[in-house]
Amino acid sequence: MNNCMISDSAMIKENVIIGDNVIVEDNCYIDYGVILRDNVHIKKGSYIGARCILGEYLMDFYSDRINKVHPLIIGENALIRSDTIIYGETIIGSNFQTGHRVTIRERSMIGNNVRIGTLCDVQEDCSIGNYVSLHSNVFVGEKSVIKDYVWIFPHVILTNDPTPPSKTLIGVTVEAYAAIAAGGIILPGVNIGEDSLVGAGSVVSKNVEKETLVVGNPAKKKSQIQEIENKQTGQQVYPWKYTFSRGMPWEELGYNQWLKSESSK
Amino acid sequence: MNNCMISDSAMIKENVIIGDNVIVEDNCYIDYGVILRDNVHIKKGSYIGARCILGEYLMDFYSDRINKVHPLIIGENALIRSDTIIYGETIIGSNFQTGHRVTIRERSMIGNNVRIGTLCDVQEDCSIGNYVSLHSNVFVGEKSVIKDYVWIFPHVILTNDPTPPSKTLIGVTVEAYAAIAAGGIILPGVNIGEDSLVGAGSVVSKNVEKETLVVGNPAKKKSQIQEIENKQTGQQVYPWKYTFSRGMPWEELGYNQWLKSESSK
Amino acid sequence: MNNCMISDSAMIKENVIIGDNVIVEDNCYIDYGVILRDNVHIKKGSYIGARCILGEYLMDFYSDRINKVHPLIIGENALIRSDTIIYGETIIGSNFQTGHRVTIRERSMIGNNVRIGTLCDVQEDCSIGNYVSLHSNVFVGEKSVIKDYVWIFPHVILTNDPTPPSKTLIGVTVEAYAAIAAGGIILPGVNIGEDSLVGAGSVVSKNVEKETLVVGNPAKKKSQIQEIENKQTGQQVYPWKYTFSRGMPWEELGYNQWLKSESSK
Repeated sequence: MNNCMISDSAMIKENVIIGDNVIVEDNCYIDYGVILRDNVHIKKGSYIGARCILGEYLMDFYSDRINKVHPLIIGENALIRSDTIIYGETIIGSNFQTGHRVTIRERSMIGNNVRIGTLCDVQEDCSIGNYVSLHSNVFVGEKSVIKDYVWIFPHVILTNDPTPPSKTLIGVTVEAYAAIAAGGIILPGVNIGEDSLVGAGSVVSKNVEKETLVVGNPAKKKSQIQEIENKQTGQQVYPWKYTFSRGMPWEELGYNQWLKSESSK
Repeated sequence: MNNCMISDSAMIKENVIIGDNVIVEDNCYIDYGVILRDNVHIKKGSYIGARCILGEYLMDFYSDRINKVHPLIIGENALIRSDTIIYGETIIGSNFQTGHRVTIRERSMIGNNVRIGTLCDVQEDCSIGNYVSLHSNVFVGEKSVIKDYVWIFPHVILTNDPTPPSKTLIGVTVEAYAAIAAGGIILPGVNIGEDSLVGAGSVVSKNVEKETLVVGNPAKKKSQIQEIENKQTGQQVYPWKYTFSRGMPWEELGYNQWLKSESSK
Repeated sequence: MNNCMISDSAMIKENVIIGDNVIVEDNCYIDYGVILRDNVHIKKGSYIGARCILGEYLMDFYSDRINKVHPLIIGENALIRSDTIIYGETIIGSNFQTGHRVTIRERSMIGNNVRIGTLCDVQEDCSIGNYVSLHSNVFVGEKSVIKDYVWIFPHVILTNDPTPPSKTLIGVTVEAYAAIAAGGIILPGVNIGEDSLVGAGSVVSKNVEKETLVVGNPAKKKSQIQEIENKQTGQQVYPWKYTFSRGMPWEELGYNQWLKSESSK
C-alpha cells in the first residue's frame, strides 16, 4: 500500500486489501473484503461491493508473479455490486452500474451511464458506448463493438471466431439504439443495424439492416420494426426511443425535443 | 451487531460479518467469511456456505448508504452453498437447497423443499412453489410464477418484456408438474401448462397446453406427453409424477397412493 | 491445519484458510482468502487465485458436518483464477488453467493442458482428456466424456437426461478434435464425432459423424468439414488441426510432423 491516496471521506470496511498507487476519491464506499490491486483509480462517490477485485492481473503477471502497470480507472458515482472482477488496463465512464459477479477483461473502453448485469462476461478489447444496458449473463466476445443506447438482454452471446478455433477474431458490431432479445447468438463480424431488433433465441449469421426485426434459427427478416404492435394496446412500439425513456438522457424532454436541444448546443 | 440472537449451538467460522437484528437459530453453521446484513433470520439446522451474502442491499441503500428494513427469512434446514447472494425482503421455506453463486433478488416468495442450482439468477417479485427444482444457470425474470413440482433444466430463460425495452413486464407462468428442458427460452406472459414438457433448446412464444410436448424454434406441439417413450425400454415415461419420485413427497407411497392419503387428510 | 506440508517457497497471502492433510509444493502462490479444505494436494508452481475454494465438501459433509476423506490433486503449474470452486475426489493434470468462478464437482478426471473458462460448471463424474479448451460458461452435465483436443465455445450445454426428470443419466461423448460452437445444445447420449464441427446455436439430437458440419435446430448435416472455406481467404480451414496450432503440442512441428515424431517414440 505504497503511494496511495485514499480520501478521508471514503468509507473502507473490514478486510479490504489495497495495493500500490491506488487512488480512492471522496465519498467512496469500499465494502468488506474488496481487493484493489495496484494502479486502480476510483473516482468520487463510487460504491464498490463486497469482495470485488479491481485491477485484476493480466496474463503477464503469472510468468514472474510481478504485477505490471495496467491502470484501471472507474468514473464518478459507480455502483459496482459484490463479487465483480474488473481487470487492469480498462477505462470506465461515470455512473457505471453492475450487478453481481460481473467479469470485465483488459483493454476495454466503456462509456458513461452503462449498466452491466449479473454474471456478464466482457472479454478483452471491447468497446462499449454510452447508455448501454447489458442484462444478466451476456457474453461479449473479444473485439466486440457496442454503440450508444444499445440494449442486450439475458444470455445473449456475441461471438468472434469465424472458423473456431482460429487466430483471426472478428468482433460483432451492434449499432446505436439496437436491441437484442434474450438468448440471441450473433455470429462473428455481423453488424446489427441501428434501431433494429433481434428476436429472442435468434441465431444471426448475416448483417441486420437498420430498423429491421429478425427472428429464428437462422434469423430471417420478419418485418420492419415500425410494423410491430404492442399486443395489448395495438400501438406502434418501435423505434423504442420514441416510446421508452427511463434512464435515458431524453427522459425529461422526449426523444425529439432532446435531439433538438442537443443539436442546438 | 446490535440486537442479535445467535444461538450458542450455532457454529460461526472465521471472518463472518454480522449486522443488526440478526437471528441465527440452533444448530446452524455459518462458514468462513459469510456476510449477514441487517434483519436476517436463519432458522434452525441451516448451513450457510463460505462467503454467502444474506440480506443483500436493495437499491434504496445506495442513495444514502443507510440500510432500510428489508427482512430476509430462511426456513429450517437450509443448505445454501458458497458464494450465494440473497437480497432482503424475501421469505424462503424449509429444506431449501442451493448450488454455488446463486443470486436471489428482493420480494420473492419461495416455498418448501426448493432446490436452486449453481449460477441461477432469480430476479425480483418472483413466486416459486414447493418442491421446485431449478438446475444450473437458470434465469428467472422479474414477475415469474413457478408452481409446485416444476423442473427447470440448465440455462433456461424465463423472459418478461414483450417489447424490449419497455416498462410493462409480464412474467411467465409455469404450471405444476411441468418440465422445461435445457436451454429453453420462454417468451413473456407465456403459460406452460400442467404436466407439459418443453424440449431442449425450444423458443416458446405461445401458451403450451397441459400434457403437451413442444419442441423447436419457434416451438410447436409434437405430441401428447403420454406418447413419449423411453428409447431404451419402450415404456411410457410421462406424466413423470408416476415414474419418478426421488425427493418428492410421494417417494414412499407412489403418486396415486400419496394423492389419496393427502386428500383424505 | 494438522499434518500439512506447506513448502517454504510457497507464497501464502492473507486470510487463507488451510484444513488438515494439505500439501502445497514448491513455488506455489496462494492468493488472498483462498480456502483449502482437507486433503488437498497442490503440486509445484501452481497459482491459486483469490478466494478459490479447493476440496469443497461433497454431499456427505452436510448430514453430520464432518468432512470425509475426498482428496483433490491439482497438477503442476496450474493457473486457477479467482473465485473458482473445485470439489474433493477429483484429479487434475498439469498445466491446468481456469478463468474466474469455475465450478468443478467431485469424481472428475481432468487430463493435462486443459483450460476451463470463466463461469464453466463441470458436474460430477465427468472425464476430460488432454489439451481440451472449454470457453466461458459451458455446462458439462454429469457423466460427460470429452476426449483430447476438443474445443467447446461459450454457453454450450452438454445434457444427460433423456426423459427429464429421471434417474437414468446418459452423458454426451465428444470425440477427439471436435469443436462445438457457441450456444450449442447436445442432447443426452449423443456422440459428437472426431474432427466434426457443430455450428453455433445448434440443437443436436442425433450422433454426428466424424468430419461433419451440422447446424440448426434440430441440427442437420450441412457438409463435410473439408468443404468449409475461410470467407476472407477462400482457403480450406478444417480439420483445424492442420491450420491451427497455438497451445497445441504440434505448435513447433505442425500436425503431421508432430504425429510422425509421436508415433516413432
